[in-house]
Amino acid sequence: MKLDTFFNPSSVAIIGASHTPGKVGYEILQNFVRNEYPGKIFPINPDTAPILGKEVYSSILDIKDQIDLAIVAIPANVVPKVLRECVKKKIESVIVVSGGFSETGAAGKKLEDELKKIIQKSKTRLLGPNCIGTLDAHTKLDTLFLSQSRMKRPSAGNIAFISQSGAVGSTILDWLSDEKFGISKFISYGNSSDLNEADFLEYLGKDETTKVIVMYMEGIKSEGKKFVDVLKKTVETKPVIILKAGKTEMGTKAIASHTGSLAGSARIYSAVFNQTNAIEASDWEELFDFAKVFSTQPFPKGNKVAVITDGGGFGVLATDECARQGLELPEPTKDMIKLFKKIFPPHVILHNPIDLTGDATEERYKIAIEACLKSKNYDGVIAITLFQVPTIKEQIVDILTDMKKYKKPFICCAVGSRFTKKIVENLENNEIPVFLTPERAVKSFAALVRYSKNMR
Amino acid sequence: MKLDTFFNPSSVAIIGASHTPGKVGYEILQNFVRNEYPGKIFPINPDTAPILGKEVYSSILDIKDQIDLAIVAIPANVVPKVLRECVKKKIESVIVVSGGFSETGAAGKKLEDELKKIIQKSKTRLLGPNCIGTLDAHTKLDTLFLSQSRMKRPSAGNIAFISQSGAVGSTILDWLSDEKFGISKFISYGNSSDLNEADFLEYLGKDETTKVIVMYMEGIKSEGKKFVDVLKKTVETKPVIILKAGKTEMGTKAIASHTGSLAGSARIYSAVFNQTNAIEASDWEELFDFAKVFSTQPFPKGNKVAVITDGGGFGVLATDECARQGLELPEPTKDMIKLFKKIFPPHVILHNPIDLTGDATEERYKIAIEACLKSKNYDGVIAITLFQVPTIKEQIVDILTDMKKYKKPFICCAVGSRFTKKIVENLENNEIPVFLTPERAVKSFAALVRYSKNMR
Repeated sequence: MKLDTFFNPSSVAIIGASHTPGKVGYEILQNFVRNEYPGKIFPINPDTAPILGKEVYSSILDIKDQIDLAIVAIPANVVPKVLRECVKKKIESVIVVSGGFSETGAAGKKLEDELKKIIQKSKTRLLGPNCIGTLDAHTKLDTLFLSQSRMKRPSAGNIAFISQSGAVGSTILDWLSDEKFGISKFISYGNSSDLNEADFLEYLGKDETTKVIVMYMEGIKSEGKKFVDVLKKTVETKPVIILKAGKTEMGTKAIASHTGSLAGSARIYSAVFNQTNAIEASDWEELFDFAKVFSTQPFPKGNKVAVITDGGGFGVLATDECARQGLELPEPTKDMIKLFKKIFPPHVILHNPIDLTGDATEERYKIAIEACLKSKNYDGVIAITLFQVPTIKEQIVDILTDMKKYKKPFICCAVGSRFTKKIVENLENNEIPVFLTPERAVKSFAALVRYSKNMR
Repeated sequence: MKLDTFFNPSSVAIIGASHTPGKVGYEILQNFVRNEYPGKIFPINPDTAPILGKEVYSSILDIKDQIDLAIVAIPANVVPKVLRECVKKKIESVIVVSGGFSETGAAGKKLEDELKKIIQKSKTRLLGPNCIGTLDAHTKLDTLFLSQSRMKRPSAGNIAFISQSGAVGSTILDWLSDEKFGISKFISYGNSSDLNEADFLEYLGKDETTKVIVMYMEGIKSEGKKFVDVLKKTVETKPVIILKAGKTEMGTKAIASHTGSLAGSARIYSAVFNQTNAIEASDWEELFDFAKVFSTQPFPKGNKVAVITDGGGFGVLATDECARQGLELPEPTKDMIKLFKKIFPPHVILHNPIDLTGDATEERYKIAIEACLKSKNYDGVIAITLFQVPTIKEQIVDILTDMKKYKKPFICCAVGSRFTKKIVENLENNEIPVFLTPERAVKSFAALVRYSKNMR
């Protein structure tokens, strides 16, 4: 597939590979060595002393093998010369990490225009300049120059992440590395003088390792109509969740001095997201809250949810948020109430939210959740599982995980310290998403409902 | 001070102290033993075999010493008898942990009315029934029956927490125990047949260990006018932050079946909070986000904030939220720009948000933050410090901590894994609040601004 060599090249040239630890060109090479990247690696530097045990070449033109991907990390003024060599060598994919182009003013803009001209009519496609490149958690390709001691990498999963901003992208990747859900591919496109968000949306729409696409953007770099068309087509194949920065007049002004993007009116963007059924997130925490449920949950048939809790207060907070999000909370059916009355002690509250109360057991959860997931009365369940309650045994992890067999959305909410965190980790390893607040759980459920409804 | 013996009693009777690990009456006694509580402890049980090495008495009437606090954890039907003995023994403070009263229906209501009658005209005050009692992180008094293996306790600090719901209260205490800010006192008041939220608001208003009061409530238990009067008076002495559950019609209905409280109209509550200058939180994360800044920060003189970042995208997100919250972002003064131009490389962006960019150093932060905090142009600073940047050294902790000397609100935003978390921990140990998202940092700053403005 087109653009594939940005993610799984058989051979990679690192132009500007450095002998000095800490330098960009050293850190990039070190990722390849540390990850034991299975392709051929060619460090390029006029000083051909080996780096990290690898043979160094003075130019890509000295290499006989075909090269799939070149990563360029050299001063801006020598990039054009090297890019011409890449075209000559028929390298399909080039990532220019170097800064010093249009983001610095008129002279830089001229240099960047030159890059565009060099690849015109060639088969070489350019990512950047002024970007941190790509990361593929499955192939272990990693062009990010940020040291792993400061920025850990997420595990392999099915969430793709496109970020205009390298800083936002790398910061969130670092945070994701401590979370229990992984990514498929990451792309930072920087100045996007050739490839931009529309190209990668299109690519990820067809990418089999990607189930959900999340995107941080300040403004679009592609032509407006193309972006809308590609977004619409992509959303038809998989969910696209977008965090758009610069939604206020003040924010738009801040973008102008940050990346010089035309941020455009927030209302236009929101209209486009609505029209295409893209899912808009209000901050980056929500971006990944939503990604977590879309990455793991089946689509609900409707908006009817059962809230099951062992803490009445958290049930009320969840109910408030359901009302705000337009979710319905139907009461349990007569048959369900009959069943519950037979098994549960009389202080269990048989309304929705169902309150199993502070002496809840894992068995009580099993009975209540199972009854709701089996019933046509409900399209999914939100279980608030406060593990501080002394009566819940740790085997609740298996019980909750088993609920996946009903193929309805099922998400949890739990909060606490060591004991709770251990259980939550086990649940998330089993692809049961757990949220820290009832409100975040409900909002994520509601995002699933909205997307599914619009897709029908 | 009245009610003091609920928090620092010299002598405590645990009525219903149990010989069986896991039982409520055992867990309560174990907390006193484990915490090495400095007062005298009298376990009461008809079976007088020692428990946890402590001598056991068959009745409080067998004890010659004065008793300040009795904790009652016995079946509901025998509570009246024991409460009569407490009155006879002139015990000032009694916590009835036992459930089985008004929350269970008409018979329970009758039993609870009996408790009220017993303490009438006596000096004995009652907390509960059906509550988890009190915790004082300074004196180490801890009546919570939840095992420390599942529910850790927060460290000592200046935030007091009143929760109607025991489950919400204990869950959040457990979560707080992993956070870097501590609490002064915690109170769960359950059915509040005698003491209620108004009594404790009044008490905490005068409590010297408490700087900020946070409160989770479903409905008021006190008389409406009294609650408004006490709230108003308390807010005049210190900030009161309230999370009110049941703000939608559906949520109100859920409360009716949860605690039977009359939740009342959300609009009436919001009007009361507005009128009294109480700070309303929209979920429990915000409750403690706000508590964190009020607990550590001085009050701002106005709404002018400088946002300083090393990641442009996060600066834009912060700016968007500033616009939503009505904060102003004035541009740096000419003198400041002159200074910055002399020291900073040309790619640093000298608008507000000030973008120190991806090669920012701790020194660059020092210069920018200091200039803003010294300037009359700004009432405070929000610093977005993304530590993934390789150029920032760990001594940034000392530099940022030193900024407290300017006595203006100064809060940070940082997100990441191991490396970042270590720095954040050090900052929060030094009372610099750090938030995970720019939006949460800005909202917390704005809460400070609103309260301070209304107090002037």
